Amino acid sequence: MSYIEELGIKAKSAESAISTASTLAKNNALAAIAKALVENQDVIIRENQKDLQAAQENGMSQAMQDRLKLDEKRIAGIAQGVEQIIALTDPIGQVIDGFVRPNGLRITKTRVPLGVIGIIFESRPNVTVDAAALCLKAGNAVILKGGKEAINSNIILGKIMRDAVKSAGIPEDVIQVVENTSRETTNELMRLNGYLDLLIPRGSARLIQAVVNTATVPVIETGAGNCHVYVDASADLNMAVDITDNAKTQRPSVCNAIESLLVHKDVADKFLPMIAERFKAHDVKIYGCDKTIAILGDSVEKATETEYATEFNDYIIAVKVVDSIDEAIAHIRKYSTRHSECIVTKSLDAAEKFKKEVDAAAVYVNASTRFTDGGEFGFGAEIGISTQKLHARGPMGLSELTTVKYLVEGSGQIR
Amino acid sequence: MSYIEELGIKAKSAESAISTASTLAKNNALAAIAKALVENQDVIIRENQKDLQAAQENGMSQAMQDRLKLDEKRIAGIAQGVEQIIALTDPIGQVIDGFVRPNGLRITKTRVPLGVIGIIFESRPNVTVDAAALCLKAGNAVILKGGKEAINSNIILGKIMRDAVKSAGIPEDVIQVVENTSRETTNELMRLNGYLDLLIPRGSARLIQAVVNTATVPVIETGAGNCHVYVDASADLNMAVDITDNAKTQRPSVCNAIESLLVHKDVADKFLPMIAERFKAHDVKIYGCDKTIAILGDSVEKATETEYATEFNDYIIAVKVVDSIDEAIAHIRKYSTRHSECIVTKSLDAAEKFKKEVDAAAVYVNASTRFTDGGEFGFGAEIGISTQKLHARGPMGLSELTTVKYLVEGSGQIR
Repeated sequence: MSYIEELGIKAKSAESAISTASTLAKNNALAAIAKALVENQDVIIRENQKDLQAAQENGMSQAMQDRLKLDEKRIAGIAQGVEQIIALTDPIGQVIDGFVRPNGLRITKTRVPLGVIGIIFESRPNVTVDAAALCLKAGNAVILKGGKEAINSNIILGKIMRDAVKSAGIPEDVIQVVENTSRETTNELMRLNGYLDLLIPRGSARLIQAVVNTATVPVIETGAGNCHVYVDASADLNMAVDITDNAKTQRPSVCNAIESLLVHKDVADKFLPMIAERFKAHDVKIYGCDKTIAILGDSVEKATETEYATEFNDYIIAVKVVDSIDEAIAHIRKYSTRHSECIVTKSLDAAEKFKKEVDAAAVYVNASTRFTDGGEFGFGAEIGISTQKLHARGPMGLSELTTVKYLVEGSGQIR
Repeated sequence: MSYIEELGIKAKSAESAISTASTLAKNNALAAIAKALVENQDVIIRENQKDLQAAQENGMSQAMQDRLKLDEKRIAGIAQGVEQIIALTDPIGQVIDGFVRPNGLRITKTRVPLGVIGIIFESRPNVTVDAAALCLKAGNAVILKGGKEAINSNIILGKIMRDAVKSAGIPEDVIQVVENTSRETTNELMRLNGYLDLLIPRGSARLIQAVVNTATVPVIETGAGNCHVYVDASADLNMAVDITDNAKTQRPSVCNAIESLLVHKDVADKFLPMIAERFKAHDVKIYGCDKTIAILGDSVEKATETEYATEFNDYIIAVKVVDSIDEAIAHIRKYSTRHSECIVTKSLDAAEKFKKEVDAAAVYVNASTRFTDGGEFGFGAEIGISTQKLHARGPMGLSELTTVKYLVEGSGQIR
């Protein structure tokens, strides 16, 4: 039996205890985790230092090292995140639908845990705790596979969480941390049918693609966001500047930031200089179509297919002047990753057309795409943002970590 | 560009027309299909004869030949099935949830089509029409890959449906029939990422396993059913006989029929002779544990792990006498495919425990497992019964062929 299969068996064996645990029992386990993290901060920081030292030796970028780092303040923040999950409503047991059939059968559709969830993620060790806490609250066992650059941090966090849940009377095997980070082990995790009910990759486009190509267990893709703002002919141009600037520059590295700007030709002459002026504060590099260049001048580089298709995740934007809302929607259909798309308009017709015809997890009218987020949507926490259409789409909260069960109650009915 | 990729591009190009079509337009297209099937019954029967002749020459079993056959009555039945789908409520546009955030953003979660759905199925050509009609009603384009034994039937049905939807003003490319049934083509369909939003295999366990192992597009598994009836110590034994007999013998070839019977030791002496007597009408072969053999005698063959794990789909049953409801639940957890599980009991405690602890798409108290079916659940039609936990579980109706879109409407909100 392989190492990963052993983890799968252990997780599966703990599944029924956690899936039938009361909300109180699960919250007690989460409280024990939050407490243990703070109490053990010294040992966490010591193990994290090993990862940081290796990162330095391997010449990891400062930005990446910063993502990897755990200190007292960050550990307190992680513990606080767990406390917030305690405060969320338990989705398990929720009755979604219910009806009585003509033959008297009473059918109730209720929310139940998924079972065992695998998470494959990169660098930031806080995900280890966030993801485990969310899975546990929704009654699931979890197998966590972090990056090898954070292996010491992940192992100690796993150990502390396992001890904590055990002290709260829940089997420690509901939380499994993969200690062997080899590619073979990871591939095996992606094919752990019979033990894994869902696998969620969180991280780079490359990681997600690798999981999609290799996995035979059910997967939810997260992340990729080639998002657009379309400024309609009727737009309030000051609002359009605020929204475009916010969606591009407030945090350009995240998936709900925009990468392209589409502007109706009737307002391009007026709007493009306004947004170019605003972009100066962040020194945003602009690629544009010929019309954009004609309006903004030679500081704009010519945009090609490549720029329109790229998720820059940086202070870079591709701009196109379009003849109509139809051209804007066609452009979005061609290049969008169907994450978040926005129209700025005063026209009811344009707003309705955009909402109807644009296919994305979140379609915005007159608001920044940066709101596509579990917290901003009011879900309290999120395990990621799904960019696929199956099971979950958009920000995934606790409900998305559940499935359903039909309870069928009768008095001897037969067919 | 490969043949399958071409089909994918065509389906994708038709996607937006069907996804935004009105219910009336979709119903008109379905009505045109129903009408065209009846009008073209002669040519359908002629093409079907080619398949039947090939089947005869290849020595296909009579039962399989019967499944393959289309005649006037069956074509009328298929057309009637399409009419029934017209009568179903269109799920598209349904508002699932909606709320206003503190910053004034109005968020509405609405039902939208999935996009392009692939169906891989075997032998019965009626699935070609059923599946296409359901996908179309839910606003999806569909790529249909039937078995090579029904290729002539499937091609003519596809052609008739394409002509019909076109005559009703919807692009014919919303329906694609794969005319090349080679294994390479099929494998390519399973990896058509970027064009297929969902792939549903319908058919044998072998087909489903092949799809799960090969596919990189999102898949919903259907079908496998190793289902149980547990007769509790407190059961009404006459009711238990009716339910067990119905669940086993009313139609043993289907996935919601039971394969095993678990009986509490306190009632085994009385119940087992009762059900054995009833089973005589269908000459049901019984495998049993030692206690079963001690009660029913040598006509019962010894049951091993193999029998408890087998989906017989036949007049065969594996029986086990258990010491407690806990042993029954543990047995179900070990062998069940998590499709449909039943307890017969008068005890409220036992019923609640069984409902809570048994993990299956449908958990029954005092009713036959044979009710796990889209029609019996009142969904009007079904595309299959999901035995996985992601996206859909249990009978899949029109709603399960949809996804969601968040509409976010503001007045200039930024972060």
